[in-house]
Amino acid sequence: MLVSPYTVAARYRAEIRQEIRSLGTPLKVVGFLGGEYAPSLTYANYTKNACEELGIDYELRQLHRLDLEQAIVAANEDPSIHGIMVYYPIFGNEQDRYLKDMVDPRKDIEGLNAFWIRKLYQNERLVDGARAAGKAVVPCTSLAVLKILEANGAYGASGTRPAEHKTVTIFNRSEVVGRPLAVMMSNDGARIYSFDEQGPLLYLNGKATETKITRAEALQQSDMVITGVPSPSFPKIKADELSEHTICLNFATIKNFTAEAEAKAELFIPRVGPITVAMCMRNTLRLYRTYFAKEHKNTVA
Amino acid sequence: MLVSPYTVAARYRAEIRQEIRSLGTPLKVVGFLGGEYAPSLTYANYTKNACEELGIDYELRQLHRLDLEQAIVAANEDPSIHGIMVYYPIFGNEQDRYLKDMVDPRKDIEGLNAFWIRKLYQNERLVDGARAAGKAVVPCTSLAVLKILEANGAYGASGTRPAEHKTVTIFNRSEVVGRPLAVMMSNDGARIYSFDEQGPLLYLNGKATETKITRAEALQQSDMVITGVPSPSFPKIKADELSEHTICLNFATIKNFTAEAEAKAELFIPRVGPITVAMCMRNTLRLYRTYFAKEHKNTVA
Repeated sequence: MLVSPYTVAARYRAEIRQEIRSLGTPLKVVGFLGGEYAPSLTYANYTKNACEELGIDYELRQLHRLDLEQAIVAANEDPSIHGIMVYYPIFGNEQDRYLKDMVDPRKDIEGLNAFWIRKLYQNERLVDGARAAGKAVVPCTSLAVLKILEANGAYGASGTRPAEHKTVTIFNRSEVVGRPLAVMMSNDGARIYSFDEQGPLLYLNGKATETKITRAEALQQSDMVITGVPSPSFPKIKADELSEHTICLNFATIKNFTAEAEAKAELFIPRVGPITVAMCMRNTLRLYRTYFAKEHKNTVA
Repeated sequence: MLVSPYTVAARYRAEIRQEIRSLGTPLKVVGFLGGEYAPSLTYANYTKNACEELGIDYELRQLHRLDLEQAIVAANEDPSIHGIMVYYPIFGNEQDRYLKDMVDPRKDIEGLNAFWIRKLYQNERLVDGARAAGKAVVPCTSLAVLKILEANGAYGASGTRPAEHKTVTIFNRSEVVGRPLAVMMSNDGARIYSFDEQGPLLYLNGKATETKITRAEALQQSDMVITGVPSPSFPKIKADELSEHTICLNFATIKNFTAEAEAKAELFIPRVGPITVAMCMRNTLRLYRTYFAKEHKNTVA
């Protein structure tokens, strides 16, 4: 069954809109675009619309990529700005990692700064902000994956171990999606087989170890299969590789499953983008309450 | 003329040894090796010998790469450890960047944490430590390049703009050597042409802008040519590309100049490794004084 991410995103947006209205303070997000890269422009427009629908001020700043670093520094220091997004790739190399770390963690609504990644890997779920204690921010796409699974009953919403007894295979171990996801889901009780070009790893309770498992064995044992491989040379997952009743999700921009595999899946989630954007907005609200809110609030977004 | 880095390294080591003796406290450095990679083992032995010669305790911890993250966290928290080195590559992908950011900046004797890189790019040269104000740490290899140039009279040791009127071409724009070097030298007054696979950039006063200059033009105008290209497909710099009296330096592990170009150079510096290690030890001392020294010292290493 094909699952649209829009319904879940709409539900989150409704919640966030109401919370923003109750704040009584206008929140402002600035998006940084470092050139004319078309997919980034599309994504920028998408986030602009999402912000405006939720009652968040949004300003797009389109600059030469060589001017971005100083522009981020200025936005970090500008008290009228509560959230910063950067549309990657900017340089398409390690300099992008540097830019991620330039964004003030208190305004890093995408959760990409090493400050937040470190909290996640160390399983520190709370931070003590200047205004309140709050939940740590996690990278938007990983969070979006968990939220759409949860909304479809595939991930326990309550309880301390919402993924107990689940076996999950994840194809992608990037520092911005795949590894955070493997760590979070395994901290929630799942047995994770994580594949990338360096081979498989097994994650249990947030900790990775070597494993000799093959792709075929991992897929066959999995309750969920999550993919995010941007390369057309990745052999698409075929129907006969999946067990019955497998939940499949692809967050890459290209297809990682054959049409037959998509059809065979118990649930097939073809993208999470709309929820990712909603999670960024939710992070904006959360960071505002933790670090910037005028009055102390006990609520945690 | 061929210049050996050993003489300069020896002079720095003598200075550092004396300063360490005068501290009266034993300093301890831990090196982390994540596997059996032979060049890293060699480098580890080299740093062990350098530490011991200087009177710094050195301990090599050889672990499975998947256990490194927690081992670094433990070393960050261990008050008996003053400096941490990690022998990269560990994963050989973006996860290595994450490990660099896991090292506590106060123990980051290699200067690779985003905390220090950010200071460098923002041209903030001092930090306020728990024990004293101190000079910011900069990445060891970039610093080693400056120090060997300085020792050979190619870089002004005194004055606020030690590289005024110098034109320098740098082939390498990595976040750990080439870009810090371009930023530092241009902040010191040089005109820098920085080349990498994305093309040339011009750095003036720490700021990069686009330029259409060709390799031939840049080389022809340069007083100094600095290379660090690890790829054999890089066309080696030939004698007829260099002007007379050019100072040439290669910090890559493979040759980036032809033998004729090396011979033509006014000075040819074939490697900086020994000075890099000395700079790590100097950083150990500096960080100790800034963050950990029992008594407040006004001296800045």
